[in-house]
Amino acid sequence: MPPLLPSEISRLLDGKTKPPGSLGLLESLAAQLARIQNAPNPKIIRPTILVFAADHGITAEGVSPYPSEVTAQMVHNFLGGGAAINVFCRQNGLALKIIDAGVRADFPDHPALVPAKIARGTANCVHAPAMSQAQLSEALDRGGQIAEEISREGCNAVGFGEMGIGNTSSAALLMHRFCHLPLTDCVGRGTGLDDAGVERKLRVLEKAAALHQKAQSPHEILAALGGFEIAMMCGAMLRAEERGLLLVMDGFVSTAALLAAHAVRPAILDSCVFAHVSDERGHRKMLGFLEATPLLQLGMRLGEGTGAALAFPLIQAAANFLNEMASF
Amino acid sequence: MPPLLPSEISRLLDGKTKPPGSLGLLESLAAQLARIQNAPNPKIIRPTILVFAADHGITAEGVSPYPSEVTAQMVHNFLGGGAAINVFCRQNGLALKIIDAGVRADFPDHPALVPAKIARGTANCVHAPAMSQAQLSEALDRGGQIAEEISREGCNAVGFGEMGIGNTSSAALLMHRFCHLPLTDCVGRGTGLDDAGVERKLRVLEKAAALHQKAQSPHEILAALGGFEIAMMCGAMLRAEERGLLLVMDGFVSTAALLAAHAVRPAILDSCVFAHVSDERGHRKMLGFLEATPLLQLGMRLGEGTGAALAFPLIQAAANFLNEMASF
Repeated sequence: MPPLLPSEISRLLDGKTKPPGSLGLLESLAAQLARIQNAPNPKIIRPTILVFAADHGITAEGVSPYPSEVTAQMVHNFLGGGAAINVFCRQNGLALKIIDAGVRADFPDHPALVPAKIARGTANCVHAPAMSQAQLSEALDRGGQIAEEISREGCNAVGFGEMGIGNTSSAALLMHRFCHLPLTDCVGRGTGLDDAGVERKLRVLEKAAALHQKAQSPHEILAALGGFEIAMMCGAMLRAEERGLLLVMDGFVSTAALLAAHAVRPAILDSCVFAHVSDERGHRKMLGFLEATPLLQLGMRLGEGTGAALAFPLIQAAANFLNEMASF
Repeated sequence: MPPLLPSEISRLLDGKTKPPGSLGLLESLAAQLARIQNAPNPKIIRPTILVFAADHGITAEGVSPYPSEVTAQMVHNFLGGGAAINVFCRQNGLALKIIDAGVRADFPDHPALVPAKIARGTANCVHAPAMSQAQLSEALDRGGQIAEEISREGCNAVGFGEMGIGNTSSAALLMHRFCHLPLTDCVGRGTGLDDAGVERKLRVLEKAAALHQKAQSPHEILAALGGFEIAMMCGAMLRAEERGLLLVMDGFVSTAALLAAHAVRPAILDSCVFAHVSDERGHRKMLGFLEATPLLQLGMRLGEGTGAALAFPLIQAAANFLNEMASF
């Protein structure tokens, strides 16, 4: 089928029994779906949330109010079905896969668990690169495979979530480098630091940023400041985009992974939907850097892909009105 | 059961496996549901959208780019299942009732249609009160009965939508009186007026406001500036609140009906959720007057209850996380 032209998509939207433009953001979303799928009747098929989990060496510096062990505990909670992301996926009919990208614990086999451990947590990036270039390559490749698998299973829309105590530190450092913003704009409360805690986190991140200022390419920056879950998400995003999937961003950490993917391939943004703006301080500026408009503004800051899961009914609604509404 | 205390509700929320407060607005929404239902495990049962439709005498003044006949055409579209509100109700499992509160047309029997016609359109409020006090009483009562009926059917959460060419004029006049704001703050594009059209609409509304400035009580104001669908919605809101239902506001016209209900019974706000902020100019200030925080900000301005229908998955998510998430 030849590419749908923007004017053809506009005609479809404006032919619906409503004042032109009156469905607001749902209309641009419907147009985006039609464009990505090159179809006047786009469908959301087997929507899936991927939650990438890993531990972070930088937690040794006291950057989070929670200990590293909570990452593994939350993975158990995901597998047991009791976390917020489980509740929202069940409600909205979303498949859920939990990826162990590098948690400091072992997990029993489970149908929802994808074992993809690169190592038991990253190195502490205040003293050394978070990961080696070999580990980065492995993480990117493994992420690509996971995207490939869900695409083969028929999924055409994927939400990216994460879990990893310490990972807002990694995300803030990546934001600092990829958005060219001062660290003070990038650092936030994470899971709930007080003002003194944020100040301490900022000092730690300044040390890490200074140590790795020579890292220049997207790959060097990603390896230095790291996060196995972030790197693996980045690989999954790049491959999902190649396979024509809709990419649904979640919050601060998920969007930080996109910053790296975007540095490699700017056109990836055409396939992205931004589910929400997180309450984590840097996220609004991160979205501003990408010129992205979030669907939801609920003051959430939980991660896990919860924003993405909650946005799926709106994405479905955009497809549905285009498919099901009467035309004049 | 004795009333749940705020501290008990906070303890429930903070016991869930997530950082305290990290679900943002969903947490205050969950607390509100627990409060209204006086239950630690609130449920959304048989959620229903009521769409009140009526015609407006003020359309004779050229306040809308669409002719009055479109009201009846859209009612036919609702009954045929082809409008946006049908699509979103089907998607989100919402019951839908269309109420003929005063359309200038007759409709065949239909399972989704509630015949409640007060008259074939209101009088033109530029020259006379939109309706008599007797008509207002009938509209309020009939609205109350409709709320009573859905409550008896088991519904405990109701969204209020509307259709009526010319009804943003009526809503703007009500906002002017109930919010004590100048008409320039209240008038907007409606279904799509251009700048000159908005200017003309403003002149018309100024005449109507001047004619009825002696109307002082909520009932006098509502009868003078009217809208059968607005008055009937107001009656339905008041009764729904008495029956302990959750009230889900839609956009500008729906919230204007609430302004009248709020003038009669301020505590009604405790039972209200504000689904979205509409793109219709006055809605943001109307919400500000009520100190209300909308769930969605999608730049929509379609009416029909579409914002309410799209917000229901978030309301359901608030109930679900409280019911289903694991606790520490």
